[in-house]
Amino acid sequence: MKNKNALKVRFLGGVGEIGKNMTALEYGKDIIVIDSGITFPTADMPGIDLVAPDVTYLVQNKDRIKGIVLTHGHEDHIGGLPYLLKEVNVPVYGTKLTLMLCEHKLKEQKIHDYELNCVKTGSSIKLGVFSIEFIHVNHSIPGSCALAITTPVGIVVHSGDFKVDLTPINGQMIDMTRLSEIGKKGVALLLCESTNVEHEGYTMSEHVVGETLDRLFSDNQKRRIIIATFATNVHRIQQIIDLAVKHKRKVAFSGRSMLNVVEAASKVGEIFIPDNVVIDIERIKNVADKDLVIISTGSQGEPMSALTRMASGDYNQVQVGGNDTIIISASPIPGNEKSVYQVINNLYKKGAEVVYKSITKIHVSGHACQEELKIMHTLLKPKFFIPVHGEYRHLKKHCRLAKEIGMKDGNMLIAEIGDTIEITAKTMKRGEQFQAGTRYIDGLSIDDTESVVRDRKHLAEDGLIVAVCCISEDSGEILQEPDVINRGSILTDEQVQEVKNIVMRVISSFDVKSSDLGDIRSSIRKQLKNYVLKKTKKSPMIIPVITEV
Amino acid sequence: MKNKNALKVRFLGGVGEIGKNMTALEYGKDIIVIDSGITFPTADMPGIDLVAPDVTYLVQNKDRIKGIVLTHGHEDHIGGLPYLLKEVNVPVYGTKLTLMLCEHKLKEQKIHDYELNCVKTGSSIKLGVFSIEFIHVNHSIPGSCALAITTPVGIVVHSGDFKVDLTPINGQMIDMTRLSEIGKKGVALLLCESTNVEHEGYTMSEHVVGETLDRLFSDNQKRRIIIATFATNVHRIQQIIDLAVKHKRKVAFSGRSMLNVVEAASKVGEIFIPDNVVIDIERIKNVADKDLVIISTGSQGEPMSALTRMASGDYNQVQVGGNDTIIISASPIPGNEKSVYQVINNLYKKGAEVVYKSITKIHVSGHACQEELKIMHTLLKPKFFIPVHGEYRHLKKHCRLAKEIGMKDGNMLIAEIGDTIEITAKTMKRGEQFQAGTRYIDGLSIDDTESVVRDRKHLAEDGLIVAVCCISEDSGEILQEPDVINRGSILTDEQVQEVKNIVMRVISSFDVKSSDLGDIRSSIRKQLKNYVLKKTKKSPMIIPVITEV
Repeated sequence: MKNKNALKVRFLGGVGEIGKNMTALEYGKDIIVIDSGITFPTADMPGIDLVAPDVTYLVQNKDRIKGIVLTHGHEDHIGGLPYLLKEVNVPVYGTKLTLMLCEHKLKEQKIHDYELNCVKTGSSIKLGVFSIEFIHVNHSIPGSCALAITTPVGIVVHSGDFKVDLTPINGQMIDMTRLSEIGKKGVALLLCESTNVEHEGYTMSEHVVGETLDRLFSDNQKRRIIIATFATNVHRIQQIIDLAVKHKRKVAFSGRSMLNVVEAASKVGEIFIPDNVVIDIERIKNVADKDLVIISTGSQGEPMSALTRMASGDYNQVQVGGNDTIIISASPIPGNEKSVYQVINNLYKKGAEVVYKSITKIHVSGHACQEELKIMHTLLKPKFFIPVHGEYRHLKKHCRLAKEIGMKDGNMLIAEIGDTIEITAKTMKRGEQFQAGTRYIDGLSIDDTESVVRDRKHLAEDGLIVAVCCISEDSGEILQEPDVINRGSILTDEQVQEVKNIVMRVISSFDVKSSDLGDIRSSIRKQLKNYVLKKTKKSPMIIPVITEV
Repeated sequence: MKNKNALKVRFLGGVGEIGKNMTALEYGKDIIVIDSGITFPTADMPGIDLVAPDVTYLVQNKDRIKGIVLTHGHEDHIGGLPYLLKEVNVPVYGTKLTLMLCEHKLKEQKIHDYELNCVKTGSSIKLGVFSIEFIHVNHSIPGSCALAITTPVGIVVHSGDFKVDLTPINGQMIDMTRLSEIGKKGVALLLCESTNVEHEGYTMSEHVVGETLDRLFSDNQKRRIIIATFATNVHRIQQIIDLAVKHKRKVAFSGRSMLNVVEAASKVGEIFIPDNVVIDIERIKNVADKDLVIISTGSQGEPMSALTRMASGDYNQVQVGGNDTIIISASPIPGNEKSVYQVINNLYKKGAEVVYKSITKIHVSGHACQEELKIMHTLLKPKFFIPVHGEYRHLKKHCRLAKEIGMKDGNMLIAEIGDTIEITAKTMKRGEQFQAGTRYIDGLSIDDTESVVRDRKHLAEDGLIVAVCCISEDSGEILQEPDVINRGSILTDEQVQEVKNIVMRVISSFDVKSSDLGDIRSSIRKQLKNYVLKKTKKSPMIIPVITEV
């Protein structure tokens, strides 16, 4: 039985995974979309550039969508915007740095027809039946917000990504006062991020990183300092600039995304760079080592990033050597460890000193640990709770944490991508499943990429064998010994000859003129597969090509 | 100038990497080989089963090799033995469990002509000019040894993999007395492992894991317990068996390598299993949850392992559910995090409770931390030092640690694979480079795998396009519109047609009868590459096939 008076919360991404966050709220005819993120591909998605949510449901209902609201400017929250706007062109709402970063993305993708609306934290917008208030939170990028969404069934709060930083760099703490007020009004549903739910206590303040860096500046007075961090960690960059001024060093930025973000943050006043501090990376040869700090991308060992290229000696502007101290002010994201360590090894080989996570307080997370999550729950006192922004293990533990501080089992649940959860003032239950999942973005292609990835994995594991045979259209006779091409698979000359023989034997076994070529091809495929598996214990992709001339 | 009186230390593996350990010592005509390990392939080696050292140098000098000495039975020390013995059949020396595991491997590979010689710790063997003493050390597998090798230039000590465990499970501590005696005699060269050199302090005793597990047994009295750990961690398994007896549970082993190792360890008396404790995994249905503990492989999320299959519901013998507590008694090896977390997520989804590294003391390392490394250096007081068993960053830090406790800069160096280091009683210097590196083992093939892996990576990233065209041998005419097959690459129907047109245009532009087919093919390749790159931003492998009939 459908409940027409229920709020439908549809999960398009960000549950059961860390990445590609996207949730839709739907009441009556009105839909709003919260965030539009992407995920970076993992090793089992060869050749894929980005992974975005499957937005078929939104495309099918595009006339009902009142707008997209963005919590902050990280890739897993805004990276999918260009792909979404291409198909669903609706107004977008966010704070100024978030929109600045979106604008850059849209331009890169040559999208010109869009509407970006800047919202200040503390203020509200109205989209159909929904009224959305943007509430300032601390996170590792400026302009991060939680959302308090007034709906016909009550207030829904989406935490966005947050931490509680009592000594933030720009002086603005998470707006706990407003969160308490909303909690007092009564919250129907909390959607709260879960990234650090496995970590006890509190996430340290961004401030402590500044203290560590200050000490490292003092300890390395005669050396050049290179600091790699996330380009979007604007407060980290602000601290480094402030320390450069204090220690009388010039600052050079290195890496395309670093330049983009710093430019965007400067334009909107989220970073302050005094005059005569920054010099162009092209001109650092004119500055003594002791007078320079380079702020670089590549803290995750990304193959084409500035730091990775410095480490492999493949970056003209910066030659790393014995007088460099390189500080990696970031933690490796799970899956990136090998690449990061490869960069570190290469930097050491060049004689540089490398400071990384073995030193504590060189990086802090942007996400709430257990005690901070408890603060969010306690301030808001929601009736219902759905954890978001986490793998299943995080969501599970977040439920457990909520239970510890009083949430009832029946009032929370774990959602998966494609789930609709229906909320009324008194009830929360699972509704229909809808089409959702993963869209691989590969070069310029978006669609049909799933079978392509499957093929690539097969090719990568076992390679391929192409067997080409020309036969006479008139007689069905084989006109030439087949051609056999193998790539990524290993056959001896003898085995190649036997492959040819098998192809000829199979074709000869058919009455070619009266047979379907597809049948002949699948028979060749089967025979070759058996032969090759037996000889090499591998199962390459086998492509028989029969040309009739 | 060659120094005929120098000891040559040749590095075939294990330096600049953690994995495939192999070092050769050479004096005059005599050579001995220390360890013969493999590495497991990483994501950038698609389809590869194992990575072994390139042993060309050893094959070329096989008549001079007096024997292979093994420090312990881990894969990165013995996994390459079958591949080496196939080409260099010399006697092998090691302790009993090590040899038992080798024998199993050799049988699997159908190698029958080998000589395995069991050596007791505390005793010595003589191989040519070398006299090798096996010294007991603590590590995460029984029968681990350091080697004290008396050579014409002095004593060389190879630490093997070790830790200092003051409360080991079998009661046998690392033989510090013997190490001190050897130190007193005078050590020319120390080759010392570096795995945990970035960690301060001491590695905890294996004993503390038992205490944690004991508590978990008590906390889960009514539940079934499943513990995943490394099959070779025999002392861990012994502790679990002892706890099972204490808590009146039966033990079932799950996973092929777990069964193999337990069988081998039982045979040689390295594990003690009382009667009536073990039951076959096929028969666990007859045992109540509270009376059972399953010891399983899969602590690294290996795709085909028992735990991974339990988690995905793909393991008939064990159905995981709400009354299971699964303990992962291991740390994820860097690179395995994603797979391990995938398994954990799946186990949670099945309703099980999962205990993993977020709980401290559920696993301890088998390797020495900084203070233990200092003990090794201090007891042995070597004249020269070369760190081994580590990535470059570990080797670098190990040198720094050695310097802190008195080693001179000039008396230590970092070796790379393919380096020969020449040692006399008074000098250590770099000698010639020799052929060394990596051998990929792929199904049944060992050779020529490097270009194959390159092809596979290309195929995986961008897929392939095969363009087949039949031309007349007599006239050079195109007999049929070309066939185009694309796999792992995305072309629209229009683009496929244009690919066909390009192939025909290129062929027509040649005077086919007087041209080299290779030239035509490379012209097709070039034109198609440009076209496809422009249209799709991808660069698939392009294989033109021209058949003359």
